[in-house]
Amino acid sequence: MRILEDFEFPQDLIKIKDLDLLASELRRKIIEVVDSNGGHLASNLGVVELTIAVLSVFGKKEDSIVWDVGHQCYAYKMLTGRLNKINSLRKNGGISGFTCRGESPYDKFTSGHSSNAISEALGLAQAGWVLGKKGKTIAIVGDGAITGGLAYEGFNNAGKFGKNLIIILNDNEMSISQNVGAIAKYLTKLRTRPVYLETKRIANGILGNFKFLGQRFKDLLLKSRLILKNVLMSGGTIFESLGLSYYGPINGHDIFELIRTFSIVKNIEKPILIHVITKKGHGFVPAEKKPDKFHAVAKLNVEKENLKILSRTFSDVFGEFILKTSEKNNKIFAITAAMSGAVGLADFEKKFPSRFADVGIAETHATTFSAGLAAGGMIPVFAVYSTFLQRAFDQIIHDVAMQRLKVIFAVDRAGLVGEDGESHQGIFDVPFLRTVPNIEVYSPSFFNELEISLEKAIESDICTVVRYPKGKEFFKPDWLSEDFNDFEIYGKNNKILIVTYGRIFSFAAQFFDKFSNKLSILKLNKISPINQNAIKLSLEFKNIFFFEESIKSGGIGEVFLYNLNIFGFKGSFDIIAIENFVKHATVAEQLSMLSLDLDGMIKKVKKII
Amino acid sequence: MRILEDFEFPQDLIKIKDLDLLASELRRKIIEVVDSNGGHLASNLGVVELTIAVLSVFGKKEDSIVWDVGHQCYAYKMLTGRLNKINSLRKNGGISGFTCRGESPYDKFTSGHSSNAISEALGLAQAGWVLGKKGKTIAIVGDGAITGGLAYEGFNNAGKFGKNLIIILNDNEMSISQNVGAIAKYLTKLRTRPVYLETKRIANGILGNFKFLGQRFKDLLLKSRLILKNVLMSGGTIFESLGLSYYGPINGHDIFELIRTFSIVKNIEKPILIHVITKKGHGFVPAEKKPDKFHAVAKLNVEKENLKILSRTFSDVFGEFILKTSEKNNKIFAITAAMSGAVGLADFEKKFPSRFADVGIAETHATTFSAGLAAGGMIPVFAVYSTFLQRAFDQIIHDVAMQRLKVIFAVDRAGLVGEDGESHQGIFDVPFLRTVPNIEVYSPSFFNELEISLEKAIESDICTVVRYPKGKEFFKPDWLSEDFNDFEIYGKNNKILIVTYGRIFSFAAQFFDKFSNKLSILKLNKISPINQNAIKLSLEFKNIFFFEESIKSGGIGEVFLYNLNIFGFKGSFDIIAIENFVKHATVAEQLSMLSLDLDGMIKKVKKII
Repeated sequence: MRILEDFEFPQDLIKIKDLDLLASELRRKIIEVVDSNGGHLASNLGVVELTIAVLSVFGKKEDSIVWDVGHQCYAYKMLTGRLNKINSLRKNGGISGFTCRGESPYDKFTSGHSSNAISEALGLAQAGWVLGKKGKTIAIVGDGAITGGLAYEGFNNAGKFGKNLIIILNDNEMSISQNVGAIAKYLTKLRTRPVYLETKRIANGILGNFKFLGQRFKDLLLKSRLILKNVLMSGGTIFESLGLSYYGPINGHDIFELIRTFSIVKNIEKPILIHVITKKGHGFVPAEKKPDKFHAVAKLNVEKENLKILSRTFSDVFGEFILKTSEKNNKIFAITAAMSGAVGLADFEKKFPSRFADVGIAETHATTFSAGLAAGGMIPVFAVYSTFLQRAFDQIIHDVAMQRLKVIFAVDRAGLVGEDGESHQGIFDVPFLRTVPNIEVYSPSFFNELEISLEKAIESDICTVVRYPKGKEFFKPDWLSEDFNDFEIYGKNNKILIVTYGRIFSFAAQFFDKFSNKLSILKLNKISPINQNAIKLSLEFKNIFFFEESIKSGGIGEVFLYNLNIFGFKGSFDIIAIENFVKHATVAEQLSMLSLDLDGMIKKVKKII
Repeated sequence: MRILEDFEFPQDLIKIKDLDLLASELRRKIIEVVDSNGGHLASNLGVVELTIAVLSVFGKKEDSIVWDVGHQCYAYKMLTGRLNKINSLRKNGGISGFTCRGESPYDKFTSGHSSNAISEALGLAQAGWVLGKKGKTIAIVGDGAITGGLAYEGFNNAGKFGKNLIIILNDNEMSISQNVGAIAKYLTKLRTRPVYLETKRIANGILGNFKFLGQRFKDLLLKSRLILKNVLMSGGTIFESLGLSYYGPINGHDIFELIRTFSIVKNIEKPILIHVITKKGHGFVPAEKKPDKFHAVAKLNVEKENLKILSRTFSDVFGEFILKTSEKNNKIFAITAAMSGAVGLADFEKKFPSRFADVGIAETHATTFSAGLAAGGMIPVFAVYSTFLQRAFDQIIHDVAMQRLKVIFAVDRAGLVGEDGESHQGIFDVPFLRTVPNIEVYSPSFFNELEISLEKAIESDICTVVRYPKGKEFFKPDWLSEDFNDFEIYGKNNKILIVTYGRIFSFAAQFFDKFSNKLSILKLNKISPINQNAIKLSLEFKNIFFFEESIKSGGIGEVFLYNLNIFGFKGSFDIIAIENFVKHATVAEQLSMLSLDLDGMIKKVKKII
């Protein structure tokens, strides 16, 4: 690390003669950090040269750089004043694994969700223009991100507001899984087509150089030229059709070529798209070969190419169950938004290709497409991270629930997700889903309960949500009922009742094991609507503590209390839940900070035990 | 009405010789119905011929027709078994002004929101394909609708799942206001370009017909042909780039031409887009001239061209206030998603064009663009219908609130909207907004309160939502405080307290005027977060009735009770709010059915007075 160790801010780039050496040092550091802290490997390795080039040309204070998704920002962070903090990446109190507003003036937005950078950048660019500020706004957007409709809405508006906007399309030929849809095919075509300017030169050449031709022929040629020009201008590329000037494709690992291109377009006052080709995992053979495996890794052993799955996850259980069930039930149709492997659908995709859809990073379409499938007689199961389902709120209301259609949502990563931090926490699905009529929500705590929930969903006539956490199941008590009714109540003490749902029930169970004569526990399985018998049985308790691994405002605790109140409950009622966005740390640390683990429960309840 | 009066189902079309006469009878009936019931005029007049042609070719049971937005379905309803009910359009108990699942097997979905038809149709088409059903699926989509990202996500997935899909692009050169963005410009270009097949014929002709040319020239021409072919194939139209076969443009008022084209493409087994040009308001001069004025009309006087605004609305007040304020404050930037006129921004658009954006039907982009503007130092004010803001839920969480950015949402049509029915009710904004951290929500009841709310929003440091209803203000008592603090409490009775917010406070005030010695009333102005002093003052009451013109589940009532409970409230607490989707009727009828008007309040409270 000869060059990197003294590096502080983008202006230092000018002192460095061998930028390729800088790139390889950054690459080594990225591998080292991901090895120790986990994180996104392949995508970060893929943009090292791009990051250096962007900061070389657009690293001034007046410029703004906006990363879409922002998981590929490790080199960027090291080159913008955070090299000395890079070892704290994704750790409690350390720097975020995504760009993070407030962490540095170079991070314009906290990121995590896809396809929004063009819109953000347009806003910045237009504000700068109105306020008479100098500088360019750069949006760096992956090819996966432009499968999302928000990116398209951004493109559609770039012509008018993007005078100082440069969009860099970082085309690595995949989003997280292999890229899908027409736009991905189109980009493949673009990568191999003759370069745009070259085409125009040849066309002009043909018509200009032949002076011996007769008039009729010249007229025909002229007509042809006009047509050619028209076609070229109106549809040279899809991006030009959308009002952008298109440059590329350019090799995204050639720093000199990147800098040269950026320097040229820097002075053009209209919205520009530069098509850059990069390779995910560039410079690290295992990640180049299997970039999807190295998309986000918990921890990496650089020596070993194969990551072993250490233990079974809820996603695995979902995947196995849906695969097994679909062998008997030929109406099941599985949908993912670019997350086939992560949500456990990789085997399903292979086995039932005609009953499987990876729609790209397009949760809104996935939901409405599911509604269409249901209206057509299929049983659609859309497996999606809780945080990304937020994008389909209107489609859940308007296209599913209002139609009374039977769509099944398998909501993965519901609850806290740990190191990915604020943007990825699955803490809103409970309130936003329970506010919509005609939906039932299950929150299983254990693998077998996930399976039963899915069975119930398949048998149900209406839209059903099954939400389950990231990773493994927690402690499972041996006295637990296997019935998975709407709720379960344990204990004979009628003074204190602890109510929970989802995986943190495990802590309530441990609490109960310790103090079974001093408290009772209620486990909610169907969390919305609440079974009124659960309410009735709770009435006899004097003190109820409701623990929720979810946002408090609009959560189940509030409606539980309202239902108790209808029956005349006069006891005390406390909700312990999440009250704000939750920063990156381990799940255990997050649960502890929020008093949602065993210690937290004991501390909250102890005073009255 | 010689032809129309005996009409029942699409199979009757074959008996009719003069389809143009049918069109003119349908048109007369549409004008008659809108004149008496209100509704969408221009869009319905524009698609009469298209409807006849579509049903002539695709009117069989095995075919599915999906209308995007669905407000243009009046002729369709008359030709699919509902002619005898057309006079009940939009009336309480009558047929809906939109397509309506359950109303007829010809209506595959209840509609109202834009840009989802391609996704719905793809789901239907794929389900049909998996289940081995016959028939085509037709999605009829306006040019305005394809400014929405969901439509693009649908396009992007059509190639794979759309074997039996035909998309009819109903291009009337505007959405509700004048259409905006690159795609609109692109369509204009497409309308006037030489037809695609014509281009290819000429290109081939050039190369084929000249046998006297030398080898070098022929080689050059060959190269040129390859390039031309490549360009034509990769980008003939943007739709072809997205994997669809493009046909058009076709005159959408020429029934014969439409039927001929549909009959040809019917047998092609791949996804097709047919570009049809129609004219909004076709056949009715006033609506042709000013289609935006005739987009949705309360009631129409066919004799008079100019619709008089009968009284001032909340939208007017918002528009005037924001215009006035922006003269002093040059950081205010107004945003609309294709609703400039309806939300009251028409004058602003003229006066401050550089601080105004109509982004098309793209609420998600509008929200994220606003976040970008805020990050860049502007004060963005996004004026949007409550029901459409549902589409930006994730962007509100991720791009605004998580960033702690100051974006102002002016949420129009909050609450019940009357005749537009289920899809347009603004009944979810309260729960979905209050669940997001770092947002304050105001719910003014009267015009002056709307102004004060907006002032507070502009002064605030964080994201503020100001929500207000459709139309006029209700009864305003003369004893009302002008201060507009977070809450106001009136009355000396400490037995019964009525809590409300928004326009239905007027009924509470009337109730109070009648029984001021028997009850007190609490008016919430800032509804989230709730001022704790409002809670403390409510503690002394024995019976609290909380009336909400909003969905009950996750509403303010529940959190109000939770807060009361923290302070040890032991009284009774009742929430009267909306519990399901609300069908079309007048606002007065809807409020009455839901016990949210004066009579409802009296009935609910009377038993304990």
